[in-house]
Amino acid sequence: MFQSFEVTARPEQGPPRLAALRDRMAEAELDGFLVPRADAHQGEYVAPHDERLAWLTGFTGSAGFCAVLQPVAGVFIDGRYRTQVKAQVAADFTPVPWPDVSLGGWLKEQMPSGGIVGFDPWLHTPGEIETLEKALKNSGITLQPCANLVDAIWHDQPAPPMAPAKVHPLEFAGESHGDKCARLGATLKEAGEAAALITLPDALCWLLNIRGADIARNPIAQGFCVLMADGHVHLFIAEAKLSEVRAHLGDGVTIHAPDRLPGFLDDLAGPVRAHKATVPLYLAERLGDGVVWGDDPCALPKACKNEAEIEGAAAAHLRDGAAVVELLAWLDQQAPGSITETQVVTRLETLRRSDNALQDISFETIAGTGPNGAIMHYRVTEETDSLLQEGELIVLDSGGQYLDGTTDITRTIPIGAPPRAAAEAFTRVLQGMIAMSRLRWPVGLAGREIEAVGRVPLWLAGQDFNHGLGHGVGAYLSVHEGPQRLSRVSSVPLQPGMILSNEPGYYREGAFGIRLENLIVVIKAPALPDGDAEREMLEWRTLTYAPIDRRLIVKEMMTRPEIDWINSYHADVADKIGPRVSADTRKWLEAATAPL
Amino acid sequence: MFQSFEVTARPEQGPPRLAALRDRMAEAELDGFLVPRADAHQGEYVAPHDERLAWLTGFTGSAGFCAVLQPVAGVFIDGRYRTQVKAQVAADFTPVPWPDVSLGGWLKEQMPSGGIVGFDPWLHTPGEIETLEKALKNSGITLQPCANLVDAIWHDQPAPPMAPAKVHPLEFAGESHGDKCARLGATLKEAGEAAALITLPDALCWLLNIRGADIARNPIAQGFCVLMADGHVHLFIAEAKLSEVRAHLGDGVTIHAPDRLPGFLDDLAGPVRAHKATVPLYLAERLGDGVVWGDDPCALPKACKNEAEIEGAAAAHLRDGAAVVELLAWLDQQAPGSITETQVVTRLETLRRSDNALQDISFETIAGTGPNGAIMHYRVTEETDSLLQEGELIVLDSGGQYLDGTTDITRTIPIGAPPRAAAEAFTRVLQGMIAMSRLRWPVGLAGREIEAVGRVPLWLAGQDFNHGLGHGVGAYLSVHEGPQRLSRVSSVPLQPGMILSNEPGYYREGAFGIRLENLIVVIKAPALPDGDAEREMLEWRTLTYAPIDRRLIVKEMMTRPEIDWINSYHADVADKIGPRVSADTRKWLEAATAPL
Repeated sequence: MFQSFEVTARPEQGPPRLAALRDRMAEAELDGFLVPRADAHQGEYVAPHDERLAWLTGFTGSAGFCAVLQPVAGVFIDGRYRTQVKAQVAADFTPVPWPDVSLGGWLKEQMPSGGIVGFDPWLHTPGEIETLEKALKNSGITLQPCANLVDAIWHDQPAPPMAPAKVHPLEFAGESHGDKCARLGATLKEAGEAAALITLPDALCWLLNIRGADIARNPIAQGFCVLMADGHVHLFIAEAKLSEVRAHLGDGVTIHAPDRLPGFLDDLAGPVRAHKATVPLYLAERLGDGVVWGDDPCALPKACKNEAEIEGAAAAHLRDGAAVVELLAWLDQQAPGSITETQVVTRLETLRRSDNALQDISFETIAGTGPNGAIMHYRVTEETDSLLQEGELIVLDSGGQYLDGTTDITRTIPIGAPPRAAAEAFTRVLQGMIAMSRLRWPVGLAGREIEAVGRVPLWLAGQDFNHGLGHGVGAYLSVHEGPQRLSRVSSVPLQPGMILSNEPGYYREGAFGIRLENLIVVIKAPALPDGDAEREMLEWRTLTYAPIDRRLIVKEMMTRPEIDWINSYHADVADKIGPRVSADTRKWLEAATAPL
Repeated sequence: MFQSFEVTARPEQGPPRLAALRDRMAEAELDGFLVPRADAHQGEYVAPHDERLAWLTGFTGSAGFCAVLQPVAGVFIDGRYRTQVKAQVAADFTPVPWPDVSLGGWLKEQMPSGGIVGFDPWLHTPGEIETLEKALKNSGITLQPCANLVDAIWHDQPAPPMAPAKVHPLEFAGESHGDKCARLGATLKEAGEAAALITLPDALCWLLNIRGADIARNPIAQGFCVLMADGHVHLFIAEAKLSEVRAHLGDGVTIHAPDRLPGFLDDLAGPVRAHKATVPLYLAERLGDGVVWGDDPCALPKACKNEAEIEGAAAAHLRDGAAVVELLAWLDQQAPGSITETQVVTRLETLRRSDNALQDISFETIAGTGPNGAIMHYRVTEETDSLLQEGELIVLDSGGQYLDGTTDITRTIPIGAPPRAAAEAFTRVLQGMIAMSRLRWPVGLAGREIEAVGRVPLWLAGQDFNHGLGHGVGAYLSVHEGPQRLSRVSSVPLQPGMILSNEPGYYREGAFGIRLENLIVVIKAPALPDGDAEREMLEWRTLTYAPIDRRLIVKEMMTRPEIDWINSYHADVADKIGPRVSADTRKWLEAATAPL
């Protein structure tokens, strides 16, 4: 389905729904009710069935929650959404700057002692509720699990997603699901655990080598499973999703109806591992004393791609790169002031779909020109759609889902002649990206210990950007996956096979935005002639190939090794992508990749 | 007292002492006894009175411990001391690689269930004992606090240090001790704590603006104090140390004999803050349920130097730099093969002492030529003293204690013509040092988030070094102080006023060592013309001024900004140090600081 630019929520929808919810709260003798933007799988994206927050409030951001009390309804949003929330919610809702104001602190201010706050235990995790209970200690306010009161008033709530799952072929997975289950089961056994409860759909899909279509842009099938220490799997998934994968799953996987899961957990002998920050509280409580908190056993193995997954990603990136290059060549021929952001988005998606290999785009394309580019999570709508004007930069962040891999690429392109300050900032962003691309580092370091390398050129000019340098990316799975990150918050050592984005940026509010993004994969670094003999080191292999706009590079700011890197990268782009594009585009590409 | 090169311990001293200790253990019905290199203040250096580990085993390293059982005595040493320990201890002792082998794991292997291990609760912390008890859970081995059995057999044990304390003048301290006590007391009050137990001598000396001489090279007075939330201090210190400071301490400080401390703690109404990783278990247990674990309240305020302390440090560094420059000029005139490491050490100390401002050197000078330079914690003795030979590098790491500040500087100097590989590695080390010196970064980052910047030039060549990039330094206090560090293990945000070392190195075993070290202090970075308006950033001010050997710099490896930095730094060295040295040395300095 092509990206839509429709405005999907209106402020005026909120007040009557809020009133209906408050009636239900009163009936249930609750003084408050929590409405998170979450499903039972704690995914970054949710199905229409689970868009309770947007339905109730009008707010469509990708993070946030609403705490509804009788006199007040707080919509908690982080720094990215301070402006957006004001345009999307009616005056009956009060935006609350989060995490500056915590939910616990706000409840204590807004509620009397003795107040009771209801919540749906399928949509909250033990970690979350524990933190909240701690904050409410001695306040007299209590939390009470209950049925979902939004579902009770949402009469035309879409049904839960029921897309059929598909087999993810061994050719792309690189390891059979039987081998994965045996390998991970053994790690549970070693840890003295009887089983692990897996609630994250991308973990489940990776483990069983299946994919699905339950969430837009994410090829996942929603379900739960229990991995036993002997490698056997109990899968709890809707019958409707199974037609194409039943044979593939085989004897090692016992299939159960989803509603059998709580009873199954009641009967399961522990210790059973669950992940405190993502398991639904409802299920964790069924495990009782048998629960052991730990990482999802799939998280790290899934992050470390095998050779088939890496080569698949590389192939997907060449295919995807050809579409991006066609777009860039086309964009270059459009006169300033003649096209709009939505036209760019649709054209790019058309090009990606043109070879029939694209399963879906991997997220809603971000195409922000001029001041819109400075809005980090800008999603163009009919209302905001802007012409690409002379002197602006356009930030274009997009990606594709292919059977062999997931892509995510950002390029920034000048419309006409760029302002000097923008070109200088672009050059610094590029220098940061190059510094990370060229890096080699000793094994054992985590993202937080090397992320600075991609920021130093900006820092030296008194500039910086307010997002991480990079996130993990799945293998035909989520475009954002953990635990690997190039970020201050990531303490997981980087390991060979981890795919990450390398995406420094720069945003000047009201003026312009800049971001460059390649996907890169961790590999073992070969020995160097004068290098330490015993020291194991890692480096990056670049997966993304598309030109970086030469018109925005201030060559005199660059060092020789930086110029060498960009020239060598551009030569590779011409080599790898040139044969995949039209003759006219190839000509354009030759100029776009000429040495600096 | 000048640095001595005497070999202070011999392997043959160990066996009879070990036998005597085992007799005492048998009498006390203990199957084991722990002998740490520690005093009750958990300092990095200990007084001769507390050198129990060296006395018993012969091992003189700065970290380690001995676990004495009847059949075996394990000497636990980290990676730095694997070679040294073999030369220093007799065959009756078994070196144990630590932390690869943990004490708990080793005890479980070596002892039967039911075994009892004694320890002196003044020399171990609650954190340490808790970890050990956890490791011994279900083993049947128990820990038992007891009197110190080494003291019982050490008949000529030196007395505890009793150096008189001195007033640290307000001119250098920059804040009266009354103000400090009131300020820190208020933070306790705010945290709901009645008092804090302070057991670290540098914290106590900083808080009360006193200094002492209880530990060689460290101007501290050993004692304990309790800071009350109202700012009043109860000081527990030997009468003999008080003559010169009693009037200075004044009414805000009540003085008690040290042996009154346990009873005082018994009677103290809580909550009382103590630092789990450094308080003696003996004292923590006297606090009972009233104890609250937290940071030493002095730690962070002491780390953030005020203007008087920073200007004092700057002045001390110019004085110290002049002595170092005289040494470097002298060294340059010595023919290869004509002088030894100890001659360099003694000459440098003589130069430092020549203006009568030096209180003491700040640690035993490291002077390692050729392969000795590759031993990171090399301390030259009569036995290892080596001639400085043609083609070698000498690593010279030294510092001074002055009333206005503490210095710590490392330079690496070629003897004759340096090998190409050494010059290239030196250049990379220098590039790392420059990258950190030039850095500017957003407020809020800790050492671990920026340390990589000082390593990247080495990493890119497959090289690295096995120590942190930098440690905190006190204001006429410990040359190693926390919590500020430029290291993977430091999560404390850097703040204005923190003094740290910037000391990348490179070590090729059996061949050469390289280290460069300047002290630098965190300052607020001024706004830049195109910098982000709202973004607060920090940068460094360099304190150390002494030339960096031009003969080891491979200019063609350096970028323009790096060359500019070194030229500008050398111009400052000539400006600031030139007027402070002899005419001949000034001439030498002009050449040594000429632009690259």
